[in-house]
Amino acid sequence: MSFTAPTTEQIFVLNHITGIEELAAHERFADATPDMVQAIVEGVGEFAANEFAPLNRIGDTVGARVQDGRVVMPDGYVQAYKNYVANGWGSINAPAEFGGQGLPFSLALMALDSLGAANMAFALCPILSVGSIESIYHHGSDAQKALFLPKLSTGEWTGTMNLTEPQAGSDVGALKATATPLGDGKYQIRGQKIYISFGDHDMADNIVHLVLARTPDAPAGTKGISLFLVPKYQVGSDGSIGAQNDIKVVSIEHKMGINASPTCVLAYGEEGECVGELIGPEFGGMRAMFTMMNNARINVGLQGVQIGEAATQKAIWFAQERTQSARAGGDSRDPVAIIEHPDVRRMLLRMKAGTQAIRALLYYAAGQVDRAALDIDGAREMADLMTPLAKLYGTDMGSEIASLGIQVHGGMGYVEETGAAQYYRDARIAQIYEGTNGIQAADLVGRKLGIGGGSVLMDHLARIGAEAGDAPTLKELAGACTEVASWMLNQASIDDRLSGSYAFTTMVSVATCGWLMATQLRAAQAGLDGDPDNAFLKAKTVTCRYYLDVMVAEALSLKNSAMAGADLLYALSAEEMAG
Amino acid sequence: MSFTAPTTEQIFVLNHITGIEELAAHERFADATPDMVQAIVEGVGEFAANEFAPLNRIGDTVGARVQDGRVVMPDGYVQAYKNYVANGWGSINAPAEFGGQGLPFSLALMALDSLGAANMAFALCPILSVGSIESIYHHGSDAQKALFLPKLSTGEWTGTMNLTEPQAGSDVGALKATATPLGDGKYQIRGQKIYISFGDHDMADNIVHLVLARTPDAPAGTKGISLFLVPKYQVGSDGSIGAQNDIKVVSIEHKMGINASPTCVLAYGEEGECVGELIGPEFGGMRAMFTMMNNARINVGLQGVQIGEAATQKAIWFAQERTQSARAGGDSRDPVAIIEHPDVRRMLLRMKAGTQAIRALLYYAAGQVDRAALDIDGAREMADLMTPLAKLYGTDMGSEIASLGIQVHGGMGYVEETGAAQYYRDARIAQIYEGTNGIQAADLVGRKLGIGGGSVLMDHLARIGAEAGDAPTLKELAGACTEVASWMLNQASIDDRLSGSYAFTTMVSVATCGWLMATQLRAAQAGLDGDPDNAFLKAKTVTCRYYLDVMVAEALSLKNSAMAGADLLYALSAEEMAG
Repeated sequence: MSFTAPTTEQIFVLNHITGIEELAAHERFADATPDMVQAIVEGVGEFAANEFAPLNRIGDTVGARVQDGRVVMPDGYVQAYKNYVANGWGSINAPAEFGGQGLPFSLALMALDSLGAANMAFALCPILSVGSIESIYHHGSDAQKALFLPKLSTGEWTGTMNLTEPQAGSDVGALKATATPLGDGKYQIRGQKIYISFGDHDMADNIVHLVLARTPDAPAGTKGISLFLVPKYQVGSDGSIGAQNDIKVVSIEHKMGINASPTCVLAYGEEGECVGELIGPEFGGMRAMFTMMNNARINVGLQGVQIGEAATQKAIWFAQERTQSARAGGDSRDPVAIIEHPDVRRMLLRMKAGTQAIRALLYYAAGQVDRAALDIDGAREMADLMTPLAKLYGTDMGSEIASLGIQVHGGMGYVEETGAAQYYRDARIAQIYEGTNGIQAADLVGRKLGIGGGSVLMDHLARIGAEAGDAPTLKELAGACTEVASWMLNQASIDDRLSGSYAFTTMVSVATCGWLMATQLRAAQAGLDGDPDNAFLKAKTVTCRYYLDVMVAEALSLKNSAMAGADLLYALSAEEMAG
Repeated sequence: MSFTAPTTEQIFVLNHITGIEELAAHERFADATPDMVQAIVEGVGEFAANEFAPLNRIGDTVGARVQDGRVVMPDGYVQAYKNYVANGWGSINAPAEFGGQGLPFSLALMALDSLGAANMAFALCPILSVGSIESIYHHGSDAQKALFLPKLSTGEWTGTMNLTEPQAGSDVGALKATATPLGDGKYQIRGQKIYISFGDHDMADNIVHLVLARTPDAPAGTKGISLFLVPKYQVGSDGSIGAQNDIKVVSIEHKMGINASPTCVLAYGEEGECVGELIGPEFGGMRAMFTMMNNARINVGLQGVQIGEAATQKAIWFAQERTQSARAGGDSRDPVAIIEHPDVRRMLLRMKAGTQAIRALLYYAAGQVDRAALDIDGAREMADLMTPLAKLYGTDMGSEIASLGIQVHGGMGYVEETGAAQYYRDARIAQIYEGTNGIQAADLVGRKLGIGGGSVLMDHLARIGAEAGDAPTLKELAGACTEVASWMLNQASIDDRLSGSYAFTTMVSVATCGWLMATQLRAAQAGLDGDPDNAFLKAKTVTCRYYLDVMVAEALSLKNSAMAGADLLYALSAEEMAG
């Protein structure tokens, strides 16, 4: 059996968690009518299943490769990408004034949910383009917008993010790439960038690299960084394609997974002309970078949902087909499908509930991004608060679900042919890139916790507690989160806060997911009143209750870790740790 | 920097957890003097670092492969294996009357700890031989023992376990391989077996396959299964090597990891003569199989320790070398080694504490196996109780530590060159083979819980509580485990017990590890009284306290899951789960 997009679930979550109808009530998103939403959900779901899913395995086994200094995608990818562009799946949320559809980000996220569940590595390509579009849209000149956004919006051209250098990973300020003025607002770009996803490929007519670099005499650290637009092929002011910039594919990484995504080492301007132009003001690089990365973090959090969905579907099919042993508690000695065994059930229900929980978290975060675009009060703050939760917990849960997927398959899960192992290998990157999950946790306690003097998070937790209804464990967890948050806010030592940051971020994430599952449970119960045989709604009540009864409780005991402080972590010197 | 065996730690754990001196007080193990123990620990540690570790990466990248119908090991493996045999590392625990050294199983386990940390896939080969030795020793005839044990004991010949067939995985009783009498106690073996680790290779002069099969008219299910010894080359009664049995290597699996371990599909006797002989009585296959698998389960649990040790060492080196960003809480703006950042510290301390905790669990279990061999009262029961804990929690923790190891490396962890990813891929199989971890959990609640009417587990938990000392969370966890155990013992529904089995097994494992860490903490504190600058003992107090303060607490909240019952798991039909 092959992948099917979870369209009923997606529409349910868009309705009850994102509040898509509420968004459509605003003129800007008036096109997001229920009919339009349904058409997009079903259209992209079908496209993902028919065109992206069949390429997932060849993407893993053959992968992207370098040939004559350029990246060649596996068979089928070029055509599928062109079909993706032709269908308009990349332009859902792109600005209407530049050829996009101007629909909510939430719908673009939903589209990526299906596309990435079908083929996570392939669907990574558009995520990079989104980052480029947003930084050009928010920080570029009118001329840059007019020249680049229409092609990026449709997906005819793709975008990349060039931050990392060998000595500058999480520490972006340590980067050394240079930009030397050539006059006319142009710069010669020089330097080597690593880990550039889709840094080269043969699917699009041009690739728009957004590159962090230093102008001459720039101050040290992050303050001296500027963002440059450096196209693979130079673009004339009339939009004509010109000379090729000197951007060499030094190599692509041999990675554990997402092999269809070429992770490039790129050398800029080492031997020839490599002309770029500023995006935003000189030294405005960090601000533009955060614009570029912010929704990218949400989109990476979504990769946990993608893997969760795909791994869960595969595990459930397998568990229905695989017959092994009689039920321990049953009367018959006949072997049954393993889905009938309690511990297999437990794994599958956990996978299903976990996937739905993080989907709700991601779709909720996307809804806040859309509200922020509508300038709705408090939405920007809530979107900012949700971003590290969505990235950290979404991707952690994605890997956990992929691991359970292997376990359901038993020995066959460890053999590559079944595909369960690919999900496990693919999922693992999402906990690392776009800011490691440790960086996300630091973001929560270092930046997001303090928004409004702590009131945004505190109000959020209070609301969770108040709306916990008949889920006592959720209420208890919200209380525990509040206790830790107060401790964090009153903790003078940043080391103490950071030492507990990961556990705290997980706790708040689970509490938020629990709240969203409680919301869905109420919606499903209300729906069942009028439609008691609705199989989807019935299943939804079970997954929500499982998350609330079992999974929420697990986060309670992270409180010890969150409030343990730094003393024990620093009781040993680095040398003593190694000893 | 390259792998170093943790010899100081190993001796400490052998002394304080295994109680190796207590074992040596018995005549049977009198050779295990402190000098001998130290010589073995250091000798095998050096050998592992010098001969097994350098082959770990080629084992992954090149792997075992099939050439002309036979398995060829990667370069270097044949010689390293011969050196392993020559050094006597395989014969530590083998019966003295058949050429082994007759030392405690605990010392053999310690040797495998070092060998497998250096190269998990390679060190899997001896694990299979151990299973063969034990089933022949306990169930074979005198002639079989005399003929096969000396060569297996030294490692000149290796052993395999042949249980699984495509339709018979966890459900061993579904197997179809046949054994047709040829007279003279010989049988023609026919059938296909899958997932046969080291089912073929070029490192030994002969391979002794132990094969589960059915004799004609055998009853259905597990009751009709017999165990057969089927050598690659037939062996004359004088020990001479004879004709080659018809055992074809159909293929080897393409797996996610442990690529140096050839996982074979073997076809027995499909075209020619394939002669085997019974081990033990006809229909005694299950009993012999459990003998074969029991210590193998402990040895597989040890693979978590192996990966934990190797991944932790690599992560700590990396974190000392990799410089990135200034300390958030520091005065200096200079970038520091990432080991100085709180969340990296947290990951490393967790890896270190987790590895030590499961090492203690495994070494404790091995000590009980040795006591059982000495017929010490209650030891067999305790070894049996520890086996599912060691397998489940040892391997779960191994995968968690490997995952943290990747995370410490950031983007470099996802690139295969660093080796962090290999540990993650290798570790994952251990949760599956030798009985999936779900099967281990079922074993605990289905069999081990009931030993002595529940008194063995209850007494164990009471002891943990009583000896928790100044670790209140451990006392609390022991209480929670007792509560769940009582619930399980009084639960009529096997579905309810099995539904909570995984969470319960984890809880009891963590409580046991906490108890062993508390024991080590006291020993380390006592040692520091006389030797206050001892760096190892100081580090030991920190890892023990971290486990007790932070990690033990996490298991508390599994109680909800353990006692949730089966209702929610079965609220949906299999079809509704898939919907």
